[in-house]
Amino acid sequence: MSDFKWTDREKKLARQVFDTALHAELTDLMARCKSDAAAITEPDDLWELEERLSRWRREIDTKYDFRYAQLPLVFARLLREGRIQAEQLAGLGPEKLDLIKRMLQI
Amino acid sequence: MSDFKWTDREKKLARQVFDTALHAELTDLMARCKSDAAAITEPDDLWELEERLSRWRREIDTKYDFRYAQLPLVFARLLREGRIQAEQLAGLGPEKLDLIKRMLQI
Repeated sequence: MSDFKWTDREKKLARQVFDTALHAELTDLMARCKSDAAAITEPDDLWELEERLSRWRREIDTKYDFRYAQLPLVFARLLREGRIQAEQLAGLGPEKLDLIKRMLQI
Repeated sequence: MSDFKWTDREKKLARQVFDTALHAELTDLMARCKSDAAAITEPDDLWELEERLSRWRREIDTKYDFRYAQLPLVFARLLREGRIQAEQLAGLGPEKLDLIKRMLQI
């Protein structure tokens, strides 16, 4: 994906932004699961919830990939989804911010 | 499993007992799912609920097998689990009741 050097400060920032977004998304999913379960009225709703949980798990696993080479793509996606704000990434080097910006233009 | 002849009356009785037990078990599972979801406090609880739902679905699929050759085994299991009562099967022929009884003694 990319083979930039990451300084310790950038690694720490990336970890913090990543963890905060992951935690917020998991908190959202817990709330949605509670709400979906409360709305169950027939057996098929059970199996639909199972499929939904399974899809969420796969999406989380795919989306939150903390390998440095993958992080620009991860952050571009989180920006596009509105899960993080550009200001949170301000401490990253310009080569990384530029790649993220170019990914967002695709 | 068994190749008994089933009269129309027996088939109707079997279907009714089967459907009633299945409906009751699915109703139990819906209540358990709602309760388990309401108790979710951390992300791992989500994935545990997913696994639980998946296991329930497999168990229901395996347990509720409405093929006449399988029904004695199905009813024996439901009796052992307390999901049906012996009186509900009273309209079945003695050869079927005997097989069910022998299965329960295993």
